[in-house]
Amino acid sequence: MHKTALKLFMIPTVLADDTQDQVLSPGVISAIESLDIFFVENVRTARRFISSLRLGKVIDELTFIELNKDTPEAETYDALKRLTRDAGVISEAGCPGIADPGAVAVNLAHQLGIQVVPLVGPSSILLALMASGLSGQSFAFHGYLPIDKVQRKKMIQTLERESRQRQQTQLFMETPFRNNQLLDTLLETCQPDTMLSIAADITAATEFLKTMPVRNWKSNKPDLHKRPVIFSIG
Amino acid sequence: MHKTALKLFMIPTVLADDTQDQVLSPGVISAIESLDIFFVENVRTARRFISSLRLGKVIDELTFIELNKDTPEAETYDALKRLTRDAGVISEAGCPGIADPGAVAVNLAHQLGIQVVPLVGPSSILLALMASGLSGQSFAFHGYLPIDKVQRKKMIQTLERESRQRQQTQLFMETPFRNNQLLDTLLETCQPDTMLSIAADITAATEFLKTMPVRNWKSNKPDLHKRPVIFSIG
Repeated sequence: MHKTALKLFMIPTVLADDTQDQVLSPGVISAIESLDIFFVENVRTARRFISSLRLGKVIDELTFIELNKDTPEAETYDALKRLTRDAGVISEAGCPGIADPGAVAVNLAHQLGIQVVPLVGPSSILLALMASGLSGQSFAFHGYLPIDKVQRKKMIQTLERESRQRQQTQLFMETPFRNNQLLDTLLETCQPDTMLSIAADITAATEFLKTMPVRNWKSNKPDLHKRPVIFSIG
Repeated sequence: MHKTALKLFMIPTVLADDTQDQVLSPGVISAIESLDIFFVENVRTARRFISSLRLGKVIDELTFIELNKDTPEAETYDALKRLTRDAGVISEAGCPGIADPGAVAVNLAHQLGIQVVPLVGPSSILLALMASGLSGQSFAFHGYLPIDKVQRKKMIQTLERESRQRQQTQLFMETPFRNNQLLDTLLETCQPDTMLSIAADITAATEFLKTMPVRNWKSNKPDLHKRPVIFSIG
C-alpha cells in the first residue's frame, strides 16, 4: 500500500469526565469507529476514553502505541512507517498536537507522506480565549511558566509588557496543585489595571470563567487548587 | 431577572459548506435549540447557518443583533444590558471571539456579570496547528500581516526569528485572493530550512494540509487563490 493513501487522524478527547456526549464532534466519533490503531499518550486513559463512548468496539482487539514525552522519535517513526492502515493520535486531554507530544507524530507523518486529518474537539486554550473577552485578533500560548520564582516573575512582567505593546493576549498554565501560588504571584506582579482572565474546569459542571482587572481579583480570589486552569492576560 | 443568572453562549459555526453534521459538537446544537437571541457578525449568514441545521426553528421568530467591526460598543452594551434571556454569539466562520468582533460582547458580558459559556466547534487556527507538526507547546497567532510590501517582509523576518529564538510556532493569514502573493513573498523571504505549514480549505473535501521546508515548497506551489488558508512557520 502506498503511504500517500494513508491517513493519520488527530482525535481530540474530553477535558472533563462524562462530557463526551456534549463536546465531541460527530467526526471524532466516526473516526474512532473506523480505526483500530491509536498512538496514545497514556494507554490506560485512552482505553477508558474509547470504552466511555460505548461504540461496541472490542478494546482488547485495538492496537495502542505509546507516544509520550519519553518515547524515542525513532520508535514513533518506525511505527508510522510500518502502518498499513489509517491510525489515530489521542492525547491525555483535549486536542492532540497542542501542548503534548502528538506534534512529533504529525511531523514524522508529513515526512512520510501520510495525510494528516485534524478533527474538531475541545481545546482548553481555545475555549479559554473565546470566553476571555481579551483580544482574539492576536494571541500567544506559552505553556508552563518557569518554576524558579525570580525567573517566573520576570516572565510574567515580559508577558504583561508584550500584551500591551502588541495588543496580544498572553495565555499560559501551571501544574494544577500550584495554581493558587501562581495566582498570588500574578496578583503581586502585574499592574492593577492589567486584565486577568481565569478559566478553570472548562466544560465541567464546575466551570469557572471570569475576566477582571488584577486589582479586582485581589479581594475575590477563587480556590484553584488541583483544578485545570488556563490563565490569560491582556 | 438578575443579570448573574444570564448566560452568553459562544457558538461556533462551520468553516466549510455542508460540514455541520461532522464538525459541530452536540453542545452547539442544544444551545442553538434553546436560544432565540443571537449576536451575529452577519445576519444573512447566521440565518442561513441556523436553517441548515434543520432544528425546526422558525427563523423569523428569532432576534438577530448585529455585532461587526463597525458596531458601536455602546450599542452592544445596551443590547446586553437589556437582555432578559440567555443569548448566543455567532461569527462568520469558526469560533466567535477569535479573530472577529465577538470578543467585544464577551468583554462587556464580564463587566455586566453575565456568565460566558464557550462551546466546542471548528477553529481553523487550532486545526491548522494540530495538523502542522510544528510546536504546539508554544505558539502565537498574528491575524493578518501588514499590506505594505516592505513592512510585510520585515514582519515575516521578525516572525521567522521569533519562531527560532522562542521555539514558538507563528501562525497568520491573508485575504484569500492575495494568498498566492503571500506564499511567493514567504518563499523569497524565509530561510530555505524554515518549516512552512500550509492549511487550506480546512474541514472541506478539498482540504490541503502540508508542512515542508521552504526550499521544498518552491517547486511544489499549491494554488491558494480564493481558498481560506492558515500559514504557520516554525
